[in-house]
Amino acid sequence: MNKRLLVVQKFGGSSVANPERIKRVAQRVVETERAGHHVVVVVSALGDTTDDLLTLAGQISQTPAERELDMLMATGEQVSVALLAMAIHELGEDAVSFTGAQVGILTDNRHGKARIVNINTRRIVRELDKGRIVIVAGFQGQNLNQDITTLGRGGSDLTAVALAVALKADVCDIFTDVEGVYTCDPRIVPNARKLNRLSYDEMLEMASLGAQVVQARSIFVAKRFGIPVHVRSSFTPREGTMITQAAKAMEDIVVSGVSLRKDEAKVTIRDVPDKPGMAAEIFRELADKDVNVDMIIQNVSREGATDVSFTVGKSDLPATLRVARHAAHRIGAGDVTTDEQVAKLSIVGIGMRSHSGVAARMFEAMAKERVNIEMISTSEIKISCIVRRQHAERAARALHRAFDLGKKRKGA
Amino acid sequence: MNKRLLVVQKFGGSSVANPERIKRVAQRVVETERAGHHVVVVVSALGDTTDDLLTLAGQISQTPAERELDMLMATGEQVSVALLAMAIHELGEDAVSFTGAQVGILTDNRHGKARIVNINTRRIVRELDKGRIVIVAGFQGQNLNQDITTLGRGGSDLTAVALAVALKADVCDIFTDVEGVYTCDPRIVPNARKLNRLSYDEMLEMASLGAQVVQARSIFVAKRFGIPVHVRSSFTPREGTMITQAAKAMEDIVVSGVSLRKDEAKVTIRDVPDKPGMAAEIFRELADKDVNVDMIIQNVSREGATDVSFTVGKSDLPATLRVARHAAHRIGAGDVTTDEQVAKLSIVGIGMRSHSGVAARMFEAMAKERVNIEMISTSEIKISCIVRRQHAERAARALHRAFDLGKKRKGA
Repeated sequence: MNKRLLVVQKFGGSSVANPERIKRVAQRVVETERAGHHVVVVVSALGDTTDDLLTLAGQISQTPAERELDMLMATGEQVSVALLAMAIHELGEDAVSFTGAQVGILTDNRHGKARIVNINTRRIVRELDKGRIVIVAGFQGQNLNQDITTLGRGGSDLTAVALAVALKADVCDIFTDVEGVYTCDPRIVPNARKLNRLSYDEMLEMASLGAQVVQARSIFVAKRFGIPVHVRSSFTPREGTMITQAAKAMEDIVVSGVSLRKDEAKVTIRDVPDKPGMAAEIFRELADKDVNVDMIIQNVSREGATDVSFTVGKSDLPATLRVARHAAHRIGAGDVTTDEQVAKLSIVGIGMRSHSGVAARMFEAMAKERVNIEMISTSEIKISCIVRRQHAERAARALHRAFDLGKKRKGA
Repeated sequence: MNKRLLVVQKFGGSSVANPERIKRVAQRVVETERAGHHVVVVVSALGDTTDDLLTLAGQISQTPAERELDMLMATGEQVSVALLAMAIHELGEDAVSFTGAQVGILTDNRHGKARIVNINTRRIVRELDKGRIVIVAGFQGQNLNQDITTLGRGGSDLTAVALAVALKADVCDIFTDVEGVYTCDPRIVPNARKLNRLSYDEMLEMASLGAQVVQARSIFVAKRFGIPVHVRSSFTPREGTMITQAAKAMEDIVVSGVSLRKDEAKVTIRDVPDKPGMAAEIFRELADKDVNVDMIIQNVSREGATDVSFTVGKSDLPATLRVARHAAHRIGAGDVTTDEQVAKLSIVGIGMRSHSGVAARMFEAMAKERVNIEMISTSEIKISCIVRRQHAERAARALHRAFDLGKKRKGA
């Protein structure tokens, strides 16, 4: 007989889009429980609920207060948890649902993008001890003032991992509509291969680069506390991708995947004076306005000035432009230009650390496809290039081939 | 200039059915605030939300757990309060929304029909002191276990009155889609007249008898703590009906109104042994199953046995029948029969206390219309008759005439 594990299972909005799917999720959860494990389930809002609520709010106000928006949005997950509890009851098992506030998910005050500060697990543990399946609303918590907060995009993943950490769970299952993490998006590269194992660092780079199966912040937390994250399909019982610390088997794999992100825009501040503190001025102001900057590129200066470029999510572009223009004016820089017709193409792999020539191979592959590289940025386990958007998918396929990531005859 | 009052305003589901109406409610609330008053607003769920949520639950389970149903239903009001806060912000005023749990509405454990035990007003007072309009989700609270509870049908009225009590408010405005309390339902009696003032006791009898503008429990609480309740239209600025302790002006009015209720069924237990404790056995068992019994009639016995009849809400009929049959069997009584084709017709008036002949006048009026009276029950300020349902409206009009309740040339 198996050891009795504590498993946290997270199901996203598409997994609970309607009553039929909720029943399927209930079945899945009950199977895990009947296999002898303790189960804590985290669910997102039903399918389109989030959009419907945003539409309602939009009919009332174009600039709704973030506190009230959180109050509104949090109802979505509350509906899901109640319905899932009912569905599990129908299968004859005991289950109890909770809001984020009820299970003591304490966050800071940043409405709409709150960070989890602490989780008081007393109530969950008490319910698990009674033999119940515990269902928790994802994406939400409350601040010290007992106001409802939400954790931002992909927040349910974070709820799941944070609960797994707080409860010292054995594993955190993230159920999605794909079978795991792939070497590249299969819609772009048909012979993309599912990865059986992946390190947190690789997944972090993948997640932040657009392999949007798991939210990056949640992987960061999982890494910090060593919680294994199992990304798997809600439609099949097959194993997905297990994300853990770097494992032996991975060390001879140089590049794990190719990642493509098309939801960013490039911003350039021209003629930034070449003196200390200029970058700090710019990026401090952006940070204060909660703009998440991704790549930052600054090359050597010419004639006492340099250009500073960076990328941001497209939805942040209007706010970014206002801040960037203000900062540019203040430090005596030149024009601020933007470009939305870009894509970011990256290769990720823990093996890069010990292998030279990976960058060269990447650039050569793109050159052979005659894809121009506009910006380059590298980390220890990642190399990213900004290219024209219309060439991005072709370049991704070329890289996938160049690093031999396609389906192999023998097991991966 | 007016004294600065503390006003609690309650708006029902039809008043906030869509964004346009929510904006109108916001306008109304802001007008009160700009007139110099502190305002606490209580709102119900948007129009059909409650039904939509019940339908969802019904697709998952025919017998959902009440705790989970409360978790689900409470989201309806949470959506309303957030949207109303946004709408008030749009008008340039400061407002903040709360769930029942957040403003410390503590209830007992009876999910679906919880009773308010206590309200901790600390948070509301703090927000009012900051000059904010406070918006509270109606219908909901939490128990000592921090589980969400709901207060049952009409629960938002109760939330409003209970908040008015806890905050020592000057008045509790209940906004509805009618202009106040009428001498009879104007759809049945075209010349029914709006009452300017009414006593709590009269309103209590009216409310429990089917003048469903205000929930009876909330009037009971208002009476106990002496909170004036102003029933008024959300569509006009006109005064509605002010409900307070019996006022001088009312003492010469014998009968205030005629009330008709068609949502009850009659249950009769035949041949109940005529010995002590039989009625107690029956109604204790019904009470334990949370069945709300309305009228109870037991006449003198014949041959050592008697028939006991009572009325219950039609929706409670299946549960009632099970309990009544069980009880009848246990105490050695006979068959249990039901009749859904009945209606309850009542006259209500604080003046009855000091006037004789009111009952006789009522029965004569019905006799003249050849309406048979099947059961009679009286209280100090009310006389109710059970009649065939198809005759009920005609009888109501006859009573309205008999007690001269129609529109008068001079002001009421």
